[in-house]
Amino acid sequence: MALLEKVKIGVFKCGNIGVAPVFELLLDELAERGDLKVRTVTTGSKMGVEDVEEALPKLFDFDPDLMVFISPNPAIPGPAKVREILLERAVPSVVISDGVAKRIKDELGKQGLGYMIIMGDPLIGARREFLDPIEMAIFNSNILKVLAITGVLRILHQEIDRLVAILKEGLLLTLPRLIVDTDVIRDNSDFQNPYAKAKAMAAYELTKKIAEIDTRACFIEKEREKYLPLVACAHEIAQIAAKLAEEAREIEKYSNTLARKPHSKKGEPLSKTKLTLPPTLDEKIYKRWLKTLQP
Amino acid sequence: MALLEKVKIGVFKCGNIGVAPVFELLLDELAERGDLKVRTVTTGSKMGVEDVEEALPKLFDFDPDLMVFISPNPAIPGPAKVREILLERAVPSVVISDGVAKRIKDELGKQGLGYMIIMGDPLIGARREFLDPIEMAIFNSNILKVLAITGVLRILHQEIDRLVAILKEGLLLTLPRLIVDTDVIRDNSDFQNPYAKAKAMAAYELTKKIAEIDTRACFIEKEREKYLPLVACAHEIAQIAAKLAEEAREIEKYSNTLARKPHSKKGEPLSKTKLTLPPTLDEKIYKRWLKTLQP
Amino acid sequence: MALLEKVKIGVFKCGNIGVAPVFELLLDELAERGDLKVRTVTTGSKMGVEDVEEALPKLFDFDPDLMVFISPNPAIPGPAKVREILLERAVPSVVISDGVAKRIKDELGKQGLGYMIIMGDPLIGARREFLDPIEMAIFNSNILKVLAITGVLRILHQEIDRLVAILKEGLLLTLPRLIVDTDVIRDNSDFQNPYAKAKAMAAYELTKKIAEIDTRACFIEKEREKYLPLVACAHEIAQIAAKLAEEAREIEKYSNTLARKPHSKKGEPLSKTKLTLPPTLDEKIYKRWLKTLQP
Amino acid sequence: MALLEKVKIGVFKCGNIGVAPVFELLLDELAERGDLKVRTVTTGSKMGVEDVEEALPKLFDFDPDLMVFISPNPAIPGPAKVREILLERAVPSVVISDGVAKRIKDELGKQGLGYMIIMGDPLIGARREFLDPIEMAIFNSNILKVLAITGVLRILHQEIDRLVAILKEGLLLTLPRLIVDTDVIRDNSDFQNPYAKAKAMAAYELTKKIAEIDTRACFIEKEREKYLPLVACAHEIAQIAAKLAEEAREIEKYSNTLARKPHSKKGEPLSKTKLTLPPTLDEKIYKRWLKTLQP
Amino acid sequence: MALLEKVKIGVFKCGNIGVAPVFELLLDELAERGDLKVRTVTTGSKMGVEDVEEALPKLFDFDPDLMVFISPNPAIPGPAKVREILLERAVPSVVISDGVAKRIKDELGKQGLGYMIIMGDPLIGARREFLDPIEMAIFNSNILKVLAITGVLRILHQEIDRLVAILKEGLLLTLPRLIVDTDVIRDNSDFQNPYAKAKAMAAYELTKKIAEIDTRACFIEKEREKYLPLVACAHEIAQIAAKLAEEAREIEKYSNTLARKPHSKKGEPLSKTKLTLPPTLDEKIYKRWLKTLQP
Amino acid sequence: MALLEKVKIGVFKCGNIGVAPVFELLLDELAERGDLKVRTVTTGSKMGVEDVEEALPKLFDFDPDLMVFISPNPAIPGPAKVREILLERAVPSVVISDGVAKRIKDELGKQGLGYMIIMGDPLIGARREFLDPIEMAIFNSNILKVLAITGVLRILHQEIDRLVAILKEGLLLTLPRLIVDTDVIRDNSDFQNPYAKAKAMAAYELTKKIAEIDTRACFIEKEREKYLPLVACAHEIAQIAAKLAEEAREIEKYSNTLARKPHSKKGEPLSKTKLTLPPTLDEKIYKRWLKTLQP
Repeated sequence: MALLEKVKIGVFKCGNIGVAPVFELLLDELAERGDLKVRTVTTGSKMGVEDVEEALPKLFDFDPDLMVFISPNPAIPGPAKVREILLERAVPSVVISDGVAKRIKDELGKQGLGYMIIMGDPLIGARREFLDPIEMAIFNSNILKVLAITGVLRILHQEIDRLVAILKEGLLLTLPRLIVDTDVIRDNSDFQNPYAKAKAMAAYELTKKIAEIDTRACFIEKEREKYLPLVACAHEIAQIAAKLAEEAREIEKYSNTLARKPHSKKGEPLSKTKLTLPPTLDEKIYKRWLKTLQP
Repeated sequence: MALLEKVKIGVFKCGNIGVAPVFELLLDELAERGDLKVRTVTTGSKMGVEDVEEALPKLFDFDPDLMVFISPNPAIPGPAKVREILLERAVPSVVISDGVAKRIKDELGKQGLGYMIIMGDPLIGARREFLDPIEMAIFNSNILKVLAITGVLRILHQEIDRLVAILKEGLLLTLPRLIVDTDVIRDNSDFQNPYAKAKAMAAYELTKKIAEIDTRACFIEKEREKYLPLVACAHEIAQIAAKLAEEAREIEKYSNTLARKPHSKKGEPLSKTKLTLPPTLDEKIYKRWLKTLQP
Repeated sequence: MALLEKVKIGVFKCGNIGVAPVFELLLDELAERGDLKVRTVTTGSKMGVEDVEEALPKLFDFDPDLMVFISPNPAIPGPAKVREILLERAVPSVVISDGVAKRIKDELGKQGLGYMIIMGDPLIGARREFLDPIEMAIFNSNILKVLAITGVLRILHQEIDRLVAILKEGLLLTLPRLIVDTDVIRDNSDFQNPYAKAKAMAAYELTKKIAEIDTRACFIEKEREKYLPLVACAHEIAQIAAKLAEEAREIEKYSNTLARKPHSKKGEPLSKTKLTLPPTLDEKIYKRWLKTLQP
Repeated sequence: MALLEKVKIGVFKCGNIGVAPVFELLLDELAERGDLKVRTVTTGSKMGVEDVEEALPKLFDFDPDLMVFISPNPAIPGPAKVREILLERAVPSVVISDGVAKRIKDELGKQGLGYMIIMGDPLIGARREFLDPIEMAIFNSNILKVLAITGVLRILHQEIDRLVAILKEGLLLTLPRLIVDTDVIRDNSDFQNPYAKAKAMAAYELTKKIAEIDTRACFIEKEREKYLPLVACAHEIAQIAAKLAEEAREIEKYSNTLARKPHSKKGEPLSKTKLTLPPTLDEKIYKRWLKTLQP
Repeated sequence: MALLEKVKIGVFKCGNIGVAPVFELLLDELAERGDLKVRTVTTGSKMGVEDVEEALPKLFDFDPDLMVFISPNPAIPGPAKVREILLERAVPSVVISDGVAKRIKDELGKQGLGYMIIMGDPLIGARREFLDPIEMAIFNSNILKVLAITGVLRILHQEIDRLVAILKEGLLLTLPRLIVDTDVIRDNSDFQNPYAKAKAMAAYELTKKIAEIDTRACFIEKEREKYLPLVACAHEIAQIAAKLAEEAREIEKYSNTLARKPHSKKGEPLSKTKLTLPPTLDEKIYKRWLKTLQP
Repeated sequence: MALLEKVKIGVFKCGNIGVAPVFELLLDELAERGDLKVRTVTTGSKMGVEDVEEALPKLFDFDPDLMVFISPNPAIPGPAKVREILLERAVPSVVISDGVAKRIKDELGKQGLGYMIIMGDPLIGARREFLDPIEMAIFNSNILKVLAITGVLRILHQEIDRLVAILKEGLLLTLPRLIVDTDVIRDNSDFQNPYAKAKAMAAYELTKKIAEIDTRACFIEKEREKYLPLVACAHEIAQIAAKLAEEAREIEKYSNTLARKPHSKKGEPLSKTKLTLPPTLDEKIYKRWLKTLQP
């Protein structure tokens, strides 16, 4: 393969999950990466087959080197259509989805799609008596905080960073096959303090609990007196989960050991802890990325 | 004009501001509106002229009835190019931007563009020693919470909802010309409790303070010992602003007077307060929307 | 049956669950009931067959009218032996246990035993690297607060109060057959504010999550690096669940609608909300208790 | 004296104080000690002479090597009867009681009874307009948390552990004579951080304040308008004391210096601080226990 | 007596107590009262006889109609000298002091001095290893908050307002003789919510506890290891007391029932609760003030 | 110049700013300095020319070596009169004022007056519908906490301490010319933890925001519906600023690095961090003070 100077990433989103709203921004938080170009097309909260068929093809006009597809529940018709088109186009593709996707992970694997399934990216409390645009935004705010602090977003951007690094080197891509459950959080944490890690894990477990309750409230309970307290209860858990995650991060601030891992202008992984010092190249992680390519 | 059964909204984002990540979701939080179709194209955190020229035209393939353009600082070359293209294409367009845009509001007006300028949508602490993808996501989480609870997102979606209502009726569009500062929050609040409103206003004032500090830290201070404490300080304010906003909302929960205003399937404005009751059509607001059209 | 002036209740505890430590005190919180006599025998944290065989018989020396047996997991040998003895002695008996007991609820029913199975009474993080007497006590403190505020302890004492009322009237006993899950909390709550109820339900759901994590940490994970973060995580959830429950109760204080239901000296159910007023006889509930007896 | 393989402890409780509900569990938090057997008999919240005379003798059927008697105010008739019986039976006995007991500590000493008087184990707000089973349980939850975190429960279990160690070695028993006031907390603390210790001491002082207020509210004030605000005030202090104690413990978590002192299977004192490491035998304390026996 | 158009109040402070720093400001919070003139002379933290003799006489140059003397412990030589001079000068005088003053209240009464003794205005933790200017200021901040919210400052300013009203009418002065203990707080509270009142009372009880601990730490304990944890503990209680008081006030905000009682330009007592409404003349209280004068 | 054994400081206050109420106490927090004598005269909240002319001259009777004048807005007539008198009397004088004073700093300099202008000492929400004595005291409590913790009060007392040291040595006085803005806080902080410093800076920025809002609410907005929410909003910011500052200080407690800098009996600067150790002479700072005098 030829070396790429600038990797083009196409992102397609239909429907919404917690990691979706800021996904592109994770890859280039300072808007200074010279090695990356991102284009996103979304269909808003809708995820019908016709939405997909109309919107997704535009992305290929950008001639992407890598496709990322983000949606809840990739098994239903709209997202299934996305996968179908991705396979037709034969661009290396990664599916990012919520816990519901776990059921079809083998299928995703067989199709040659990479995947990152976020077990703690919960269904929202989608009942009209409860969910208005404000409640929806607050829920996303809370979930985003949990996903950021627990390390889920770190795992996500590093996996894409890894693919970009490989693409730039013209090496062989190994797409991620990742179920991001609490054990992954536990074993891949940036936390120095074990209690901070425990609180972060707790926050993540809480998001899984939200998924469980909202699923019941949205799909099983039929009477308002039954589902309304449940969605309200689930969103209260989202609020407290965000608080708990925040507390975990504060612990690291209190001992000035908070890890920061910005991208360099060239897209390399930098790393630091003490706040007043500059970040330095994290060679260990960079080498690990390229090593995973060797046959 | 002909009546539209389904209004097509094109959203173009380049760079990021606080309201951007969830914007489309605000319009159709339950993904059940039959009167609306949204397509979004974004260029990630980049906002160069070439990004704009490559990406924006795709949106017009969807033949939008209304265009929304979201970016920070619409005066710089990339976003200026967006405005140029929007004017060429002659689709009714609304610019949503941060406080920096206030300087060119007259220009926007003269160009025939609608605008909603969010004074409390602050610049992020974009210093590599500080900002990594996680810090960026947390900042967005905090700002999103403030914008949601203070009522900014309510104002935003209702303005677009209003335009959609007008477009559906085939009436004459009056595009919004709105500077969303604290007085707008004060005078358009859903809060029943005056202390809740005061806390929300306080949270909003804090986001303006963040903008002020981060601008200094990003563009004026040159030495790390000077700007690093400032960006850290600004993000601490973001955290406490989110907490303060949350507290404001809790007050309304405590007296069970929290306003919820979901969209009906037809896209009408619904409204409710007591949690256990269903929302009902908010005829007053709907009529007001259509009345503003009369010559 | 003859009328009883004073009902004698024998309580046997082996091992510990969250409701156990204060159980007797719930029945006579002011130590002024003239219609009740309680004797408890416990074997501490041990629950072996020999412990049971030695300790339980002593209780029958008090000639109890009603037996209450509290332990985790009533299916294992020690508690099973308790059930065996209870059946031999033929005193009306109620088993109070945690979620593990749900599996044998039909068996309990067939044996003619009453039961109250508390789904949100979680296993403790019983790993020696983590659990010392202090951690154990704190965990119990947190769980106790959740069980108290969510209404579980209310359900428990009212069921026993009901049996006492029936025994005093010499009517036919219908022993409770109760799985206390979140729906029971939702449908039997003393909360006036629906957000308070939602928070209480959330707290209860969290205790179920604790059970899930601790079960994994105590019985499935074998390596310290794996189970230690899990037990720490579970106890963090216990802490935040207690906080959430407390917040629920505070809401009711804030509107002066907190329900209080003390026992009268005669053991009747009293009730009040406004703090400065005296409680009055809750005739509705009392009549309901006696009505359930009618054939 | 002969060596004991397994020490049998009889625990008698009448009435309730804060340390009572979990007392036995403190001695064997993991239910794995092979050197200990505990049997408890209680009379619930009642503490009449007849309750004592009926219930206490059962405990001696277990042939205890050591008796622990827990009640409030050991000077009143019921508890005085307990002490009388304990003296008759001539089993080494330790009285655990609240601050009221301080008045008779010399008498206890003369009777040859050991004692641990917990100055910060306060009277509950026992007024029917205020105290119902739920309020009672919450109060116990709060007090339990304070007693656990401040180190009171540590002192308690270590004193009993010491007696067990001596009994196992067949050496001479020296029963504890301990007034657990704030100075004891200060001088026997597991806290590494002096501010954590200060907060813990503050929490303990608050429990003494509760005792003072509740005593006034229960025994001195006669009008509802006077005593009701007082009991409510006292329980608010209990809530904030628990919060303050929790904060103290969090400080130790934040620096990963939280002391944990579980029992080994043989009942030896283990000790650790860093969360991820295993506990090790605390030989210093163990030797100190046995040394105190030497003449 | 002649009517006074403008009442001149001389305030003398030596040493510091919690109510001292803002005392004058309480009388004229908006700096718009036309009926009042205040002059204050203080000797800083010193309270020696020579300080008093030098500084106090200056105040009489202003020809005061009423003297207010604020100091801790008015029995020691410096403050005693103040009282002596006040008696010589024969201007109506009110002593405001802390709980230590209670011992000499009869003497104050016999001397014809008015007094307001604030039982919950505690000694500071005056140990050099602990107290620096910052710690001192923070302590004062916390105590000030408690005294403000619990109603102590209300009682104080209303008593002086009453005297001013009488002086303006030329009627007979009845000087206050007030021991401001928790019962006074309970019986003179502006709180609408009984739990808010209970929390405020709790905060006030905590300040009395601080006094108790600091007295021990400053005057009894001699070794650093003993007194240092005590002063730290006392100041932690001050911090939590302020938090508790703040919580009490928040409750009133949550139901929009917070009482506000500003002075009119003429110095009359105004009153209001709902935030958005203007205050109105509190005639009831004003008449009560003047009525107390009638023989 | 002759050496002074005891430096006499005259303090004149008219009107109130946040640092005023405890100013003298900062200089002698333990009331044990032998090298200092302070006399203060104030006119309460009033700051008219006649108040000044009557009250200020009394201070000169004490024959002060140094004058400190504290008031808001030193440009208006009353305070201007103070400056005029100070210049006539030719005693070295330092003006301490709020941000409004910045406008006349050059004038102050030309007049030969020292100054310390506290940019974060905000105007109170002086609207009669909002501000009563209690609200005023609470505001002062909050601002005092921020000024103490952020380091403003440290800077203040050390500057006066420096002048006292110079006066005692009979050296040449260089009066302070200080604008205490956030950069001064940043560069002169006692905080060890950079996140604590960031939070403190944030708290200070918030007080500047309060000033901005209250200025608008008090002087620009004319209608109650407009200014009332603004003053309420400003005081909410004061409350949260105090909380944020407190959090900053807690961080230092958590790592036992909190700086304490008491005065010795001789008025020397002492210093310490670890709580359990005694303070020692801070020679570095003392020498720096005296060195600044050298030509």
